[in-house]
Amino acid sequence: MKYSIIPSSQTVVYHCKARGIKNIIISPGSRNAPLTIGFTEDPFFNCYSIVDERSAAFFAMGIAQQLKEPAVVLCTSGSALLNYYPAISEAFYSDIPLVVISADRPPYKVDIGDGQTIRQEDVFKNHIAFGANLKLDVSHASEKVLKYDKESLDGATVEEAQLTVQEFNDAVLDKAFNVVFSLNSPIHINVPFEEPLYEVITEPTLTPNVNIIRKEHKGFDLENFQGYLDIWNGAKRKIVLVGVNFPNTVDQKYLEILAKDPSVIVLKECTSNLHHPNFFPSIDSIIAPIEKSPNKEELFKQLQPEVVLTFGGLIVSKKIKAFLREYSPTYHWHIDAHKASNTFFSLTHHFKTEPNTFFGKLLKKKSVPISDYHQYWSQAKIRYISRRAAYMKEIPFSDMLAFNHLMGSIPKKYQLQLGNSSAIRYAQLFDLDASVTVFCNRGTSGIDGSTSTAIGAALHTDEPTLLVSGDLSFLYDSNALWIKYIRPDFRIIVINNGGGGIFRILPGKDKSDNFETFFETTHQIDLADIAKTYNFDIVSVADESSLISELEGFYAKSQRPKILEIKTPRLLNDEILLNYFDFIS
Amino acid sequence: MKYSIIPSSQTVVYHCKARGIKNIIISPGSRNAPLTIGFTEDPFFNCYSIVDERSAAFFAMGIAQQLKEPAVVLCTSGSALLNYYPAISEAFYSDIPLVVISADRPPYKVDIGDGQTIRQEDVFKNHIAFGANLKLDVSHASEKVLKYDKESLDGATVEEAQLTVQEFNDAVLDKAFNVVFSLNSPIHINVPFEEPLYEVITEPTLTPNVNIIRKEHKGFDLENFQGYLDIWNGAKRKIVLVGVNFPNTVDQKYLEILAKDPSVIVLKECTSNLHHPNFFPSIDSIIAPIEKSPNKEELFKQLQPEVVLTFGGLIVSKKIKAFLREYSPTYHWHIDAHKASNTFFSLTHHFKTEPNTFFGKLLKKKSVPISDYHQYWSQAKIRYISRRAAYMKEIPFSDMLAFNHLMGSIPKKYQLQLGNSSAIRYAQLFDLDASVTVFCNRGTSGIDGSTSTAIGAALHTDEPTLLVSGDLSFLYDSNALWIKYIRPDFRIIVINNGGGGIFRILPGKDKSDNFETFFETTHQIDLADIAKTYNFDIVSVADESSLISELEGFYAKSQRPKILEIKTPRLLNDEILLNYFDFIS
Repeated sequence: MKYSIIPSSQTVVYHCKARGIKNIIISPGSRNAPLTIGFTEDPFFNCYSIVDERSAAFFAMGIAQQLKEPAVVLCTSGSALLNYYPAISEAFYSDIPLVVISADRPPYKVDIGDGQTIRQEDVFKNHIAFGANLKLDVSHASEKVLKYDKESLDGATVEEAQLTVQEFNDAVLDKAFNVVFSLNSPIHINVPFEEPLYEVITEPTLTPNVNIIRKEHKGFDLENFQGYLDIWNGAKRKIVLVGVNFPNTVDQKYLEILAKDPSVIVLKECTSNLHHPNFFPSIDSIIAPIEKSPNKEELFKQLQPEVVLTFGGLIVSKKIKAFLREYSPTYHWHIDAHKASNTFFSLTHHFKTEPNTFFGKLLKKKSVPISDYHQYWSQAKIRYISRRAAYMKEIPFSDMLAFNHLMGSIPKKYQLQLGNSSAIRYAQLFDLDASVTVFCNRGTSGIDGSTSTAIGAALHTDEPTLLVSGDLSFLYDSNALWIKYIRPDFRIIVINNGGGGIFRILPGKDKSDNFETFFETTHQIDLADIAKTYNFDIVSVADESSLISELEGFYAKSQRPKILEIKTPRLLNDEILLNYFDFIS
Repeated sequence: MKYSIIPSSQTVVYHCKARGIKNIIISPGSRNAPLTIGFTEDPFFNCYSIVDERSAAFFAMGIAQQLKEPAVVLCTSGSALLNYYPAISEAFYSDIPLVVISADRPPYKVDIGDGQTIRQEDVFKNHIAFGANLKLDVSHASEKVLKYDKESLDGATVEEAQLTVQEFNDAVLDKAFNVVFSLNSPIHINVPFEEPLYEVITEPTLTPNVNIIRKEHKGFDLENFQGYLDIWNGAKRKIVLVGVNFPNTVDQKYLEILAKDPSVIVLKECTSNLHHPNFFPSIDSIIAPIEKSPNKEELFKQLQPEVVLTFGGLIVSKKIKAFLREYSPTYHWHIDAHKASNTFFSLTHHFKTEPNTFFGKLLKKKSVPISDYHQYWSQAKIRYISRRAAYMKEIPFSDMLAFNHLMGSIPKKYQLQLGNSSAIRYAQLFDLDASVTVFCNRGTSGIDGSTSTAIGAALHTDEPTLLVSGDLSFLYDSNALWIKYIRPDFRIIVINNGGGGIFRILPGKDKSDNFETFFETTHQIDLADIAKTYNFDIVSVADESSLISELEGFYAKSQRPKILEIKTPRLLNDEILLNYFDFIS
């Protein structure tokens, strides 16, 4: 086997391997050659080559999302790594363990006019859990060993007063990797290299010192828990609200208890991956009729919970956020091992644990209060479901009707990746088979990397993946289609309404002539040309019967990945969606 | 005319207009609606709509590059603005006045789980000249006026101890805009907005207070200048080395004096936009034969200058950098109003002024020392020119032969935009007509935005623009072709060698099986499909006679922009280039 002759390259590769990090996404470059060689020469690693770093980082995020383990992106020095930033911020807010490794020039060559050289140290500071700035290892060139005192060990705690470069790098890598595993939050490792960059040897020259420390979750405070139990068991109106949540995070037995508690309604977004017939999907279909009711205030008060219990990631529904901000719960408890967002400005407690641990304590006694809360809102649910069905029979071909059909078409056990922002919002309005798993980049809700994420995520699931995307998001991330690792069973449905349909839906949107140009940003790109460029099959439909017929064969085995383009009438979609909420009210 | 009702939106737009900033590149979003409305409703501004923020920022940079005046990019909150970062870093190192304006959520909604919300304040800190974090203006909602003390005025100096939001925002905008005009360096203005975002009024509600202060260049110290004059006039070996430089920056009369001084050789890169028959283009063609000579050390000592005088931006040639680092000049003087890079680790003085001012003093007395320096190296130049011509007759079709033809084909007065990294390196080896102006993103030398930059730059020149790009750089920035503002006379020549040809050229490159996948990153994309997607004409050639014939009509007027793809043999190119340096030696 071959190794880079440079000790710090061997060290970084060794640390990854020692921790079982296998997936390495590499963008081409020369400065990162020592690491590219190190990773690609060792069959332990699965290495992927992707040219566009923006796309590479979202792809890596998709892998890390599905495996729930760190994936590495590696690039050269200069502006290259800045293209990682959109995915880093998404990973930061979605708790995805992305490991960013950038090669750098030696510090003395920064800001002196060398090519592809920027200020890389701490450049992602606002959105990473830890930044490890490795020291230049010059021992391969001169055998000189530098000494650093512990103050220079950026935030890492090390006992020794003096460290060699090797000791420093080992220590700071320990710290970085322990953070990424403990917090599932992105880290950045910056590695300066001196030339020559391509020299290899057949035996490693060193054995790095790896200390794996996983932060244990503290059990939450049982002593005071009785107080919370009393509140829970006494409250007659409780909402359990679940945003982005990995499938099978919560034991079905706890879900059953929650589902059958008359004082509880479980409001679940499609990204929650939780299922029970008694739960409440399509949150907006519950809230919108209240907003439009003459008895709005009374109904909202009736819905206002004493306790809101949340777990999982960010919430899509603007309506539930607006409601809970105005009609504050007495208690908002959030369950998460690490962090809690005060989304409704009424957070009262953060239970630092996993949902299963929490529910194990909370739902031990199955005493439930007398309440008609669940039953009352179940009626509302039954009503909108029947009205929705009626509405689907009335409306012309449109985004909404397309979603109605496509959501029902998805084969069992498929992975569904959703684009932002119309795609996820429409998807929320319809039911999905419980065996379908759902993902969406909701950390920052950007349109910049959904396709790349889906392609990466598809690689590490048994079942095939479907991405449902809007046209702007699809075009934005078209470099995703350039990726060479796309499964032939990968499917994309693009809802092509000729621009950013979301802007037509927004309340209070600008009505000026500039709307189409600067908000909706209409375009004339033919997706068939894009498909041809990147070797996808494509079929395009623009009416209901064609859609139904094309959906039938769309998921069948194929030699190449496939796109289904659904062309919808740009100027009708907003009205149809807004009328839906009137219709069900 | 319509204005956003939000005072801080009116304020930002007013500050831009008061300073004559006209070009505003807008990416679609809702949070930035108050500013989108403000800019697009006022006919003073030229507004452009570009969906992909990465491409939008490089496009804006192209405009600012040509106009030498600030251009604005405006986007919504969240990961959107992070896509600006590659262009911001390029602007930072290329001294281009890019004004980044990001809309933000109010501070109390950051990190609480709201959508499209990240930590935007100071997020570009490493690579901007000034970051203005505006205060939330709530007076349109509640008439409440917040007070801030001057400590909170991030780095701006304001006399008042207490400021209203309006005063604070005016002051921090003054500071930011004064910086961008004085330093030609990018700034970031972050503007938090509260909903509602789309409300408009027909009269502005306020008149912001604008204070324009331009930092005057201090005249450089004349008292001590005699010492420098004595050194200059006494030195028998002087190199004037010029990197990226805007056309017509230096008066021709000074160039004449330098050109005729026997003790001076002017080494100019193709990005220098300086021309004189006595100057030395193709620096590598001078240095390479020395590197390969048995008398290498002697020849380098003969070339070693007493004085190196530099002005302009970054230097492409690695050979001249390596030479001057090893054979240090006694004096390295850099001329620039603001900054000086110690590129050769021997910088002895930074003259803080413009080249013309400096040369006005330096070249007053036309006393020149007796020296055969210029004459000696002229012989070397004559030699390589004749050997190069001979070599061109010998070699098969290749990158090098393609560049020989294409560089000669460019019509007079064209703007030439060069991609990184092979494109610029090959271009350096050939002569160009003196009327052709040359630009390249050499601040960070990335491949991430050359096409977008060229398309933006093309809009503000009288003559048409040609971009010469490698295939990877072209594919990387293919979203550039999605831009709606491409001139029909815009031309692209893509040297398609099927991957990153630069990696085959690099000395010491990895020879493993992984080379093609992880360094060269070969691909099979047919550029004709890309051209069709984005409505470009394209013609493809793969031999010399077709190339010559296609170049003939390539620049003629057309309805649509055009691409000329030159397919070259991937496996031959590196050898032909490396042999060139042997051949001329």
